[in-house]
Amino acid sequence: MEKQTMRFAILGLGTVGKGVVKLLQESREMLHLKTGLNLELAKVLVRDASKPRPGFEGLPLTEDVSEILDDPSIRIVVELMGGIEPARTYLVEALRRGKTIVTANKDVMADYDKDLYDAGEIGDAEIYFEASVGGGIPIIRPLKEALAANTMRQVMGIVNGTTNYILTQMSQYGRSYEEALQEAQALGYAEPDPTNDVQGFDAARKLAILCTICFLSRVKPGMVYTEGITRVTPRDIEYGRRFGWVLKLLAIGKEVDGEIEARVHPAFIPHTHPLASVAGSFNAIYTVGDPVGETMFYGRGAGAGPTASAVVSDLIAAALSKRTPGRRAGDAHTVYFEKRVLPIEETRSRYYLRLHAVDAPGSLARIAERFGEHGVSLAEVVQASGGPDHPDDGGAAELVLVTHTVQDANLQAVVRDLKEMRDTVLRVDNVIRVEG
Amino acid sequence: MEKQTMRFAILGLGTVGKGVVKLLQESREMLHLKTGLNLELAKVLVRDASKPRPGFEGLPLTEDVSEILDDPSIRIVVELMGGIEPARTYLVEALRRGKTIVTANKDVMADYDKDLYDAGEIGDAEIYFEASVGGGIPIIRPLKEALAANTMRQVMGIVNGTTNYILTQMSQYGRSYEEALQEAQALGYAEPDPTNDVQGFDAARKLAILCTICFLSRVKPGMVYTEGITRVTPRDIEYGRRFGWVLKLLAIGKEVDGEIEARVHPAFIPHTHPLASVAGSFNAIYTVGDPVGETMFYGRGAGAGPTASAVVSDLIAAALSKRTPGRRAGDAHTVYFEKRVLPIEETRSRYYLRLHAVDAPGSLARIAERFGEHGVSLAEVVQASGGPDHPDDGGAAELVLVTHTVQDANLQAVVRDLKEMRDTVLRVDNVIRVEG
Repeated sequence: MEKQTMRFAILGLGTVGKGVVKLLQESREMLHLKTGLNLELAKVLVRDASKPRPGFEGLPLTEDVSEILDDPSIRIVVELMGGIEPARTYLVEALRRGKTIVTANKDVMADYDKDLYDAGEIGDAEIYFEASVGGGIPIIRPLKEALAANTMRQVMGIVNGTTNYILTQMSQYGRSYEEALQEAQALGYAEPDPTNDVQGFDAARKLAILCTICFLSRVKPGMVYTEGITRVTPRDIEYGRRFGWVLKLLAIGKEVDGEIEARVHPAFIPHTHPLASVAGSFNAIYTVGDPVGETMFYGRGAGAGPTASAVVSDLIAAALSKRTPGRRAGDAHTVYFEKRVLPIEETRSRYYLRLHAVDAPGSLARIAERFGEHGVSLAEVVQASGGPDHPDDGGAAELVLVTHTVQDANLQAVVRDLKEMRDTVLRVDNVIRVEG
Repeated sequence: MEKQTMRFAILGLGTVGKGVVKLLQESREMLHLKTGLNLELAKVLVRDASKPRPGFEGLPLTEDVSEILDDPSIRIVVELMGGIEPARTYLVEALRRGKTIVTANKDVMADYDKDLYDAGEIGDAEIYFEASVGGGIPIIRPLKEALAANTMRQVMGIVNGTTNYILTQMSQYGRSYEEALQEAQALGYAEPDPTNDVQGFDAARKLAILCTICFLSRVKPGMVYTEGITRVTPRDIEYGRRFGWVLKLLAIGKEVDGEIEARVHPAFIPHTHPLASVAGSFNAIYTVGDPVGETMFYGRGAGAGPTASAVVSDLIAAALSKRTPGRRAGDAHTVYFEKRVLPIEETRSRYYLRLHAVDAPGSLARIAERFGEHGVSLAEVVQASGGPDHPDDGGAAELVLVTHTVQDANLQAVVRDLKEMRDTVLRVDNVIRVEG
């Protein structure tokens, strides 16, 4: 059978780009079967075409993006450069010229999705971005298509493998944050400058993408409350374990009464929660929708192979759609509303507080009083004197308090008050939300 | 904006049918937004239109299927009758006449998918069946679309909520199989005649559907080796726990060297396996693909709400596709190969055996010898004399043996030999595979 040819280009030939090229080469026959098309890699944009790339010789490299953008025979552009610019500009130009785009770029998708959809309207071109969240885990298209009939109530994800690896090491081996980070860096799971991951910025961008799809209203990374894992200690994790909890960096989106909560922070969840057993560098996205109830999507959230899986699967769908034009459910821009995103003070959660107080009669009563004054009721209190595991605390008692569900503003007011009780409270060691 | 109208019909108004109608009524506005269409329920086929249906008055009921099949203005047929006939005939006729079908019918999809796809070719109509496996869990379309670039190696599912509920009760509370079954029946999780679930037949049909999609080759329920949970005891579960395992009824599909393994049976998996924490009536499908690696899809596998989620999401996709014709990746029949399905004797696994032997010197040696003779090497042996927990065993010793990976035929030969050693082996209590 004579096969129609569909020409496409790739922007960027780093780790992910090479993974995609490799998968395309290995699965040529399967792609023929599944698409009925001859998918032809027409151009690959690189910064330096003369650089040796062992194992990737003979590719149609170019350093000039106009050879791609100005070539009408190129119908699909696969963008794997990462970062905002020049990727954003290239994507917008490709879409305006009617080229469908497939992208793994969470930065552009989180902050500039509107630019892309607007450009796509002009060029009548489509946007595929499965690889931008959760690596190889199918999540974007399932949310847009297989769960399309649901009103989504909640999305809760472990969407950053670096921090999940660090927290898993801390939990399983009692490592300090610094030790676990160094280990992650040595293994290549964490960047030399880990800020983007450990401060939760990467997770916040992915959450913005997920919230926008789930709640049909645009959520930008700047609207997401973001708190990293750098202040987590093995001691907090150990206390959590006593309560039956596991500590994770969670990306949480909720819709409550037409308003959206969007926050990334460390959180305790029950050890029986489906997300609790997601260990190491794995990712998972847990959702609650009506009427589907709870669902969870689990897999490898990063790496050349999983990312290539998502990119090439998107390419298959893009090629099939290009062959038979007509917009599909998964391609539509589903922002229909402008829902308010709550400032963190208005969100509600349970809280775990660990603090050191003067080990004297009446300390606990005075502390508990502060909670009551701000309408924060306590669910559990654990008092441990300094003891052998904290010998340097002298006359201090360590207290762990767990609240019922309260508004964040009230909890913060309690914490401010506690910090001013210098005759009673020596320090507030940590405040961690409890979810699930 | 003037909306185009898309007329569809529903066959069957049982629990699932009512759930679908309810969701359609509740989500009218969202369906408009997401499809740009006015989805109009034109007819509902029921057996007795005069039967009172409180809360479902005013529906366009009919007892005559030809009012649906012969009406060219009805573009989509949603089949929720279940069972083979007359559902199969109605679906085939609808497809031949160019109507896209959405079905939750695993029986028809597992055994008659070819009839449907052939009819769909004639009528140029599509087939959506997300609800046929895993209830509300997105799995069919993710496998066909978001994972399309992968070569799938393995699919392993907990796809029957009834048996998972029973096994969870047995594991958590030490209930016997009979007690747990009665409880499940009292709660409505198990049918009065539970055969279809507890013997693994339901899971086998779902596995046939999953294998056909994953391995691009038709697997029928009759090709699936099927073993139920009726012989599982709390004692086996307890021994498994000592080895760090959890017992599940698994639906397992593998492709090895171009041949397919397809089997449903109780199996131990490590408690750290992603499937191990899938408890109660939840379902999950775990897959391994190249290059995506491990993924898992988790959620409610049954019930009116989850099933309605899958059906109405399919309906949205079907309507969008009908509006803009042209076959999509997810709709294509992806059977390209005829791979051999291995008879159970040729499959490979690890095995747990529990038996009672005469408590005399040399017993164990004689038993171990039988394993060696058939090339089955042992990984672990636990010997426990009768003791207080089995006082009626008198002079018997309970033995648990765990093998390395062996071919099933060899293991069965060992079991046959053991059963003939009447002077040494009092009985072989159970043989359970160990996976993962």
